[in-house]
Amino acid sequence: MRATENKKDHNTDKYKCSSLIVRRNKEFTIIIKLDRAFNAQQDDVQLEFLIGSSPNEKKGTYITVSMGKRKHQGHWKGRVVEIQGNDVTVGITPDAGCIIGRFRTYVALITDLGKQHTQRNPDTDFYVLFNPWDPEDQVYVDEEEDRQEYVMNEVGIIYNGEYNNIRYRSWNFGQFEEGVLDACLMLMDAGKVPLMFRGNATEVVRQGSALLNAQDDDGLLVGNWSGDYSSGTAPTAWTGSPEILLKYVKEGCEPVCFAQCWVFAGVLNTLMRCLGIPARVITNFFSAHDNTGNLKTDIVLDDDGKVDRSLTKDSIWNYHCWNEVYMKRLDLPEKYSGWQVVDSTPQETSDGLHRCGPTSVSAIKEGELSYPFDAKFVFAEVNSDVVYHKSDKYGNMSVIYVDSAYMGKAIVTKKKGSIKYEDITSTYKYPEGSLKERETMQMAVSRGVPTKDYLPLTEAGVDFELQADTIKMGDNLKLTLNIKNHSSQTCTLSAIITGCVVFYTGVTSTTFKHENISTTVEASKTESLTMDVKALEYMPHLVEQSNLLFMVYGHVEENDASISTMRVVTLSPPELAIKMTASPRVGKEVIVSVDFQNPYNFILKNVQLRIDGPGLIPTKLKHYSRILPGASVKYKVSFFPLSLGKKVLMACLDCPLLRQVTNQIEFEVVKD
Amino acid sequence: MRATENKKDHNTDKYKCSSLIVRRNKEFTIIIKLDRAFNAQQDDVQLEFLIGSSPNEKKGTYITVSMGKRKHQGHWKGRVVEIQGNDVTVGITPDAGCIIGRFRTYVALITDLGKQHTQRNPDTDFYVLFNPWDPEDQVYVDEEEDRQEYVMNEVGIIYNGEYNNIRYRSWNFGQFEEGVLDACLMLMDAGKVPLMFRGNATEVVRQGSALLNAQDDDGLLVGNWSGDYSSGTAPTAWTGSPEILLKYVKEGCEPVCFAQCWVFAGVLNTLMRCLGIPARVITNFFSAHDNTGNLKTDIVLDDDGKVDRSLTKDSIWNYHCWNEVYMKRLDLPEKYSGWQVVDSTPQETSDGLHRCGPTSVSAIKEGELSYPFDAKFVFAEVNSDVVYHKSDKYGNMSVIYVDSAYMGKAIVTKKKGSIKYEDITSTYKYPEGSLKERETMQMAVSRGVPTKDYLPLTEAGVDFELQADTIKMGDNLKLTLNIKNHSSQTCTLSAIITGCVVFYTGVTSTTFKHENISTTVEASKTESLTMDVKALEYMPHLVEQSNLLFMVYGHVEENDASISTMRVVTLSPPELAIKMTASPRVGKEVIVSVDFQNPYNFILKNVQLRIDGPGLIPTKLKHYSRILPGASVKYKVSFFPLSLGKKVLMACLDCPLLRQVTNQIEFEVVKD
Repeated sequence: MRATENKKDHNTDKYKCSSLIVRRNKEFTIIIKLDRAFNAQQDDVQLEFLIGSSPNEKKGTYITVSMGKRKHQGHWKGRVVEIQGNDVTVGITPDAGCIIGRFRTYVALITDLGKQHTQRNPDTDFYVLFNPWDPEDQVYVDEEEDRQEYVMNEVGIIYNGEYNNIRYRSWNFGQFEEGVLDACLMLMDAGKVPLMFRGNATEVVRQGSALLNAQDDDGLLVGNWSGDYSSGTAPTAWTGSPEILLKYVKEGCEPVCFAQCWVFAGVLNTLMRCLGIPARVITNFFSAHDNTGNLKTDIVLDDDGKVDRSLTKDSIWNYHCWNEVYMKRLDLPEKYSGWQVVDSTPQETSDGLHRCGPTSVSAIKEGELSYPFDAKFVFAEVNSDVVYHKSDKYGNMSVIYVDSAYMGKAIVTKKKGSIKYEDITSTYKYPEGSLKERETMQMAVSRGVPTKDYLPLTEAGVDFELQADTIKMGDNLKLTLNIKNHSSQTCTLSAIITGCVVFYTGVTSTTFKHENISTTVEASKTESLTMDVKALEYMPHLVEQSNLLFMVYGHVEENDASISTMRVVTLSPPELAIKMTASPRVGKEVIVSVDFQNPYNFILKNVQLRIDGPGLIPTKLKHYSRILPGASVKYKVSFFPLSLGKKVLMACLDCPLLRQVTNQIEFEVVKD
Repeated sequence: MRATENKKDHNTDKYKCSSLIVRRNKEFTIIIKLDRAFNAQQDDVQLEFLIGSSPNEKKGTYITVSMGKRKHQGHWKGRVVEIQGNDVTVGITPDAGCIIGRFRTYVALITDLGKQHTQRNPDTDFYVLFNPWDPEDQVYVDEEEDRQEYVMNEVGIIYNGEYNNIRYRSWNFGQFEEGVLDACLMLMDAGKVPLMFRGNATEVVRQGSALLNAQDDDGLLVGNWSGDYSSGTAPTAWTGSPEILLKYVKEGCEPVCFAQCWVFAGVLNTLMRCLGIPARVITNFFSAHDNTGNLKTDIVLDDDGKVDRSLTKDSIWNYHCWNEVYMKRLDLPEKYSGWQVVDSTPQETSDGLHRCGPTSVSAIKEGELSYPFDAKFVFAEVNSDVVYHKSDKYGNMSVIYVDSAYMGKAIVTKKKGSIKYEDITSTYKYPEGSLKERETMQMAVSRGVPTKDYLPLTEAGVDFELQADTIKMGDNLKLTLNIKNHSSQTCTLSAIITGCVVFYTGVTSTTFKHENISTTVEASKTESLTMDVKALEYMPHLVEQSNLLFMVYGHVEENDASISTMRVVTLSPPELAIKMTASPRVGKEVIVSVDFQNPYNFILKNVQLRIDGPGLIPTKLKHYSRILPGASVKYKVSFFPLSLGKKVLMACLDCPLLRQVTNQIEFEVVKD
C-alpha cells in the first residue's frame, strides 16, 4: 500500500498507525503484484474498495475502479502509473465528497468465466479522511498556518477562570496517538447516522456532538456536576483526550466517567482534528444557560436581597466551553459557511437528542436564527439579559433591574501559533449599544425569539461597580463597591451585599457573608465602600474550582429605584512546579520533576497527579492518599525525546478539596 | 365552570366531553362561589391554573390571575364580570401563545396570615386548545369555510388508487368523539417535547409526526407493509381514527397494529383537528421514496429488460399520503407561513427519529430547502427523476433512459365542502419544463441537493405511451402500446413488455407476463400494439390493493437508443352495497344493511366488515370466517340519529385475499 510514501504526501504521517491513511481528492499510489505481466489492452482488472457491513455502489460504500480495457465510470478516479514486470503501480483518487472511514481493498479479475476476487487482507485496509488542503473538499482551509493550528496541532489551550481573571490550562488533543483514530471511528459507528452520510462534514459534526455525551445514546463521556466524582475520574483531573478515548475502547465502549464542558470540548476537538475537520475550542465568559427558551436569565432575590436559590433556576456559567469547526455549509446559503458552533456538553435536547449545532457563527451575529441547527440556543448563550426579580412574602415577583451587558462578555480561543488568547467576541456580536446590535435583535425576534416583555424601569440614577483583587485560595480578600451618583441630587442608598460560593456553572452553594450597608452619595460624586472577606469565612465552604460570587442589591430612597450587580472572584490555586534536568535532545534521557507543597492547614486526600507530554510520553498518573499541611511531594518521570521541535509537558494535581492545579512548560527538542 | 355556555362561544360544543374546553385568547367566564359577598377593594383573591407535574410560573405551566385589590401582571387576563350575592363571575382570557392541554383550577385567598388554596377538584379541570378563529393565534385561518372543513369536519376523504384511476375512501376523523381528546393529550405526554413548548404549533406538529409511528418512541401505530397482518388489524380494514386512538388508551398506551400511509395520515389529521390545528390529508400520486438522499429513483433492468428486483432498491409509491397543517411559522421568514407538510409514515429518520416536517409548501415550490424541517426529503418525493439503468452480465450498469415527469404527477386533497378532490400540484411545483422550474432546481442544488450527474442520452426519436382500461379485479385486461415515431426516418424497434404485481409502495412482487415484440414504424407515424392480459394470468399472484405494473423497455436499431415507460393498473374491487330503510329523522330508528357477494371462484377467509358512522354510531365490526364463491353476506345495524345535518355512513370489507372493499353514503338527517 506504499503507506510511508503516501502518508507523507497526504499530511497523515503523524498518525501513529501502520496502515495507509489518505485524504479525499488526492491521488495515492498502490502496487498490484500479478503473477504475470499486465496487458492494459486485454486484461480487465478492477479494484474494489468496501466499507461497512452492506456495501452498496449507490450509497458510496462499494467503490470500483477499473484499469485495463474497461472504460471507467465511477466516482473515484484510477490510472495506471507504471508497469514494472509483474508489478503495476496504480494511482487512485477518492472523490472530494466520499465517505470517510476505514476501507477494505480487493482486486477483481474479470474474464469470460466471471469475476475472481482476492481474499480479504486487513493489511490492505486503509483510512480516508477529510482534506482541508483540497479546495474541492467541504472542509478546505486556505492558509497553511490555519491548517497547522486547527488540524495538525496536538496540544491546545483551554481558557477558564473568570472574565476579569482569565486562566488557562493545556490540553493534550493527541489526535495522532496510537489507537485514537480507531477509537474515533468506533465512536462514529456507535451513532445512528448511516455510513452514506459520513462524507458530509455537517452530519459528522452533528453526530459527534450527540455522541460525545452519554445521554440518549451510549456516548463517550458522562457529564457530572455534582461535586462527587468518587466513582470515576474528576472532570478537573484529566490532562487530555487520548486517555479518555483509549479507556472507552478498552472498556468495551462503556461511557467514561466524568466530564464537564472543557472535557467535552477537548475530546470533540480531538475527534474533529483526527478525522480532518478544522476545529478549535472556544470559551465564552458568562454564558447563559437559558432553560426556558427566552432571552432572559432570571435571578430572584428574596425579601432580604439574598439570592433565592429555589426560585433561581437559570444559571450563568462563569465560563462555558464549546467548539468551532470550519466548513462549507452545503445545505445553507453560502454566507453561512465558515466557522460553526458545535457544543457537546449536554444542556438541552435538540430535536430529541442531547446535542447542539453545527450552527453558523455569522448567522448568530446577524440574528438569522431560522437555519439549522440550534441557532436560537447559541444566540441565547451569548445575548441573554440578566433580569433581577425580587419576591415579596407572598411569592409575587417583580422585575427590579435588567443588565443586558453581562452575558457573553468575552468569547476567546487560542491564537494560532501562540499560547495567548484571541478575543473573537466580535465574530458573534455587534458592539453593545450599536445600531447593528438593535437590528440583530429585531431580526432574531422575527425568527421566533420571544420579545422581551419587561417594562422600562425607573432609572436609579446610580451605578454600581464591584471591584475585587485577584487572590490565591486561602488569602483574605478586599472588596470595593464604587457607587457613582450621576444624577443631579443627593441619593440615599441602602444596599445588601451577599457573598456565596458558586460552581463554575453559576449554581450557588453556601452563602457565607451577608451585610447591610447604607450611605449617602452627593450629586455627581462617587463613593467607595470596602469590605474585608477573610479566608476563614469562605474556606470551609469551598466547592471545586473555587469561585466566590458577590451580589449587591441596592435601593435608592429618593426615587424608589433598585439596582443590582454581581462579581465573580476566582481564587488562584497554589503553584505546581515543573522542572527539567537539562535542555532536551533527541534520543537522550530527560528527567522531569513536578513539585507541590500543600500550603493549607488541612490534609489533602486522594490526590491524583498527572503528567502528560503529547508526543513524548503517554499520560502518567500517580496517587497520593494524603498530603499533610505543609508537606511536599515530588513526582519524577524520565523519557527519551524521539523527534525534533516544540513540545509541551503538562501536569495536573487534583483532589476533592483542591481542584485543577495545573501547569505546563513549552520547550524545544534539539539535535543531539 | 359554565361549560355549556362557554363551549358554544369557543366552538368546542361538539366535543363529547363534559368538561370545559376553551380556545386561546378568547374570554371564558366561570363563577366563584364564596361564603360571603366579594369586596373588590379589600379582598385579595387569586385564580391559579396549573398543568403538568411541576408547574412553574416562568414556563407557563403555573398561571395566576388576580382579582380584587392586587394589580395583575401575568399573561392570562382576568376581570370581574359580575357580582351577585356571594357569586362572582370572572372572565378569564388565556394568552394567544399559551400551552394547550388540560389545566387544573384552584382559588387562592391571600390574607396577612398567608395564602389559602381550595382543594383539587377534577370537575374544575378544563382544556385549552389552539384557536383558528383568533387572528393572534399561530394557527389563525381567515375564512370560516376553511375552519369548518379543516378544523371542524369530522369526516374526510382519502384518495388512493393510481393517477389514471383515482379512487377514494371515506375516513372517520372523529376528533370530537368521546375519549379522543384525552387520547390525543395522552399521546402528546408520551413524547419528549417539554410542556412549555406545547403552545408552539410547530413543535406540536413535529412531535405529532414522530409519535404517530411506533418507531423510536412508544408511538401510536405500528407500520407494516409485509402483507401478513394476522397479528393485528390490516391497515386496509380500518374505517377511522377513534377506534385506533381508543384502542391505544385501552391497552395502556401499547402501539396499535397495523398501519400504512393513509392510516398514519388519517390519525394525524384527527390529532391536529382535535387540538385545534387546521389540517388536511394529501395524496401524492407517484411518490418517490428516495433512500439515498439524491433526486433519483433508480430502476435497474437486467440483460432481458426485466426489472432486477435485487438491484432496484428505490421504490415509487403509486400514491403516498401525508398531511398539511396551516400555521404561521414563527421560526422562519414570513413567506414560509401557510400550509406545511408533515408526514408521520416512517420512511427515513429525520435528525435521529422517524418523523418528517413541518416543512413549508411554498419553500418546497421555490427550492429553498435550507429551512427546517426535512424540506429536502419532501422535495425529492415530488421532484425525483426516474432513471432506468440496464446491467450487463458482469453487473456493470449504464443509464439508458431518464423520465423527469413521472414523479409527483398529481397532488390532491379533498375540496372543502365537497367530496371531489382539488388538485394542488401547483402549490408544490412550477409547471414541468418552465423557466421557473429550472430556477427552482438551481436553488435546490445551491441548498445542497446533489446535482444530477448523468450525461445527456441519445434521443430515441420515438415516444411510448402505454394505455390500459380501468377494470375490475377478475376481469381480463387489454393493454395498448402506442409507439410514436417523431423522427424523419423509419425506425425498427424491439421491445420487451413485463407485467408484474406490485404493492402500493411500488415494491414489485411476482412477474406474471414477459413478452418480446418488434415492429417497424414509419417516419412521423404512430403504431399501436395491443396485448391481452387474462385474469387467469394475474389472479393467482395478487397481493393486497391489487396493482399491476407493466414496464416496457424498447431499443431502436437505427440509433442504438433506449426508451422505457411504465404503467400501473389498479384493479377495482367488487361492490359493497349500503342501503338504508328510510330517510333518517332525529330520534327515529334507522336500519342500514351492507351487502356483499363474493364474485370469485375462491373462498374469502377471515373477513372483517366494518360499519362506521361519525356522530351516528361507534365503529361496528363483524367477522365472517369464510364467504364461499358466489355467496352473499348481509350485515344490518340500527341506530337513532341524535342531531340534524349531513352525515356519512361508511363500510369496509377486508380479508387477506381481498383488501379495502369500501363504500360510503352521505345523507341528511331531518326533523321528525
